[in-house]
Amino acid sequence: MSIADPRRFLTGLFEAAVAAADPNRTIARYLPDKPKGRTVVIGAGKGSAQMAAALETLWDGPLEGVIVTRYGFGVACKRIEILEAAHPVPDAAGAAGAKRLFETVQDLTPDDLVIALVSGGGSALLPAPLTGLTLADEIAVNEELLASGAPISAMNTVRKHLSAIKGGRLAAAAHPAKVVSLVVSDVPGDNPAFVASGPTVPDAATRADALAIVDQFGLKLPGAALALLESSAADAPKPGDACFENNQVRVIASAAVSLEAAADVAKQQGTEAVILSDSMEGEAREVGRVHAAIAREIALKNRPFVKPVVVLSGGETTVTLAGKGRGGRNTEFLLSLACEIDGLAGIDVLAADTDGIDGSEDNAGAFADGGTAQRLRAAGRDPKSMLQNNDAWSAFDAIDDLFVPGPTGTNVNDLRAILVR
Amino acid sequence: MSIADPRRFLTGLFEAAVAAADPNRTIARYLPDKPKGRTVVIGAGKGSAQMAAALETLWDGPLEGVIVTRYGFGVACKRIEILEAAHPVPDAAGAAGAKRLFETVQDLTPDDLVIALVSGGGSALLPAPLTGLTLADEIAVNEELLASGAPISAMNTVRKHLSAIKGGRLAAAAHPAKVVSLVVSDVPGDNPAFVASGPTVPDAATRADALAIVDQFGLKLPGAALALLESSAADAPKPGDACFENNQVRVIASAAVSLEAAADVAKQQGTEAVILSDSMEGEAREVGRVHAAIAREIALKNRPFVKPVVVLSGGETTVTLAGKGRGGRNTEFLLSLACEIDGLAGIDVLAADTDGIDGSEDNAGAFADGGTAQRLRAAGRDPKSMLQNNDAWSAFDAIDDLFVPGPTGTNVNDLRAILVR
Repeated sequence: MSIADPRRFLTGLFEAAVAAADPNRTIARYLPDKPKGRTVVIGAGKGSAQMAAALETLWDGPLEGVIVTRYGFGVACKRIEILEAAHPVPDAAGAAGAKRLFETVQDLTPDDLVIALVSGGGSALLPAPLTGLTLADEIAVNEELLASGAPISAMNTVRKHLSAIKGGRLAAAAHPAKVVSLVVSDVPGDNPAFVASGPTVPDAATRADALAIVDQFGLKLPGAALALLESSAADAPKPGDACFENNQVRVIASAAVSLEAAADVAKQQGTEAVILSDSMEGEAREVGRVHAAIAREIALKNRPFVKPVVVLSGGETTVTLAGKGRGGRNTEFLLSLACEIDGLAGIDVLAADTDGIDGSEDNAGAFADGGTAQRLRAAGRDPKSMLQNNDAWSAFDAIDDLFVPGPTGTNVNDLRAILVR
Repeated sequence: MSIADPRRFLTGLFEAAVAAADPNRTIARYLPDKPKGRTVVIGAGKGSAQMAAALETLWDGPLEGVIVTRYGFGVACKRIEILEAAHPVPDAAGAAGAKRLFETVQDLTPDDLVIALVSGGGSALLPAPLTGLTLADEIAVNEELLASGAPISAMNTVRKHLSAIKGGRLAAAAHPAKVVSLVVSDVPGDNPAFVASGPTVPDAATRADALAIVDQFGLKLPGAALALLESSAADAPKPGDACFENNQVRVIASAAVSLEAAADVAKQQGTEAVILSDSMEGEAREVGRVHAAIAREIALKNRPFVKPVVVLSGGETTVTLAGKGRGGRNTEFLLSLACEIDGLAGIDVLAADTDGIDGSEDNAGAFADGGTAQRLRAAGRDPKSMLQNNDAWSAFDAIDDLFVPGPTGTNVNDLRAILVR
């Protein structure tokens, strides 16, 4: 795992980042006090089944509840029911799951405790169209948002105003029970209201903000969705509302913590590590070009960091779709970067989603280096054309450089690690 | 000029960067030997009149020639004629200037010396459509290129194959005289063939490359231009051609040298300075977001650089036009960055074109900080809408934060300086 074997070294950093977000370690530190009444678990997200399993192991007392996670992300639980649904495009199973969560928090008393286990991906997993909207409308809104290039905060502001569950509405339904939300953050800045569009965490963004975002990003929404946003029926609960006053929200894992863990592992192995940012946003290919420029500067001029060094960044980029290829934001970032370091030696890069899945394929990300573009050309593929066609997954698949660790059971966003020797 | 007055401090860094590219200092070091025959000066670019004036002062012997620069960029010369023409959209004066340059290098002998003074902007200043094309065609090609988001290297590959003067053709016309090109680089990587599309410096890119770029960026070219690119009439001279064998090319100033000068000035004043990259490319607003993410990380977490520090970067971003506002790439970069550091204290930024002109207004760039977005809202403007409309010049004009040093007489690309205290 020394830098003489860059891919193993980079894989080690990814594993350290994922381990730091492992719920078995993190939940233990944030267990709430036992209530007089019932303890009911709810939640959704790609990492929430792992969180539920960890909670079952750690909790001393009766426990019941329901969690919704992505197909293939379920883990065996004894007392908490694990449902699976579709991500990133919602399906009927997700809609049924959202209904089950509401049923689970019916008829609770002030003596009862609700533990909400929330992680990234929960937004798509819990479709719950407001009255007047269909599931197809909610799916259309989500697809439009994903293709728009809008940052996650803006996407969630639109989503929560068209949903019967997001933006704190699920917590409001649990009132008068106390709701403790344990949140694994996958959003820049770690605002828990933005994780999974905050089913148990209200935020201050208003319907007017949602309309401004529709305008700003030129979103083409179904007519019924637009009409709702223009009516007070779409108003969401506010952070100061009385129903939230006994609640607690804890961010138990985040990109920053995981980046620091990856940096520590690199340093323990004698390689300097720097964290560029834990909340890098922007169009994936452009973020790739800027990372490439910094990598070139290090490789060619030994600045702004002295070689050997691994440059880490977190956060979530976006992809504005123009082509018809297959790809995720990490492979798109990498293919763009690879074009900009074409022919340059001594640079090895891993970019991957810490949840183990980059977009809708089964890879978490891929490896790139100064030979990537040439290997593609040798395989009869044109790297820039493939990038233009948003076909980055196919590119890395063609040269067998995908990174496929499988679902990790947690999600603290993307990890980008650039080793320059 | 301490960091207690951030704008004066940042202005001082800009001045140091410009001074390091001052032709009076740089040309002296690269003067060629006097020839037996005539010494003829040619050239074009936003900094080329200043270079000509410096050469006149330094040259010991007879001197004659013609230089084409931008309107308002002319400086008084005694022996070298200074013509002015339009930039960034070429005009008839530029076409006449290109003809004059060819006349100037007619009938030379091997005993004669041609000194070519080439700087950024020379590409637009020397329209010379190949037979079969009109000036309007060349202008249309140029506008399409500028709006495409293609990097400067790609733009120049297309331009040189549609031009009678670019890609070494002017140097070929000067044969058998020796041509010494003194180049002030404004392009990432400092390849002199890309500066002003290399009128005196051939490069290896082929007509097939140009066609691939047309395809890659979906360029809509006039039919005559596309037909030419598909015929051998558009082939450009090659670096190994016999007519170039006595020639010399010297890059006398560049972004890297100027960034280092700016960093030295900061350090002399007790503030650490780091160079992120001297060749940052990409969509201006996205590059702004990445710079913002790094600035936030420093401001909030004191990493990857320890405060106080000034983070420098060079290179040229691009703007893909979607809106109808007024703006240049530096103001677009800054407005995007300002939205991402909204409300954050301790960050001051200057981004400016070292030639003194950012786009088609009279500012070089602007100042931004964590209060920029709020000052805009207080002035009744919405920062994100203005960014969406490519109206960044108007934004900084509205709050009186434009940076207007006037034309500098040199051009080594953009300087971005982010001071985090």
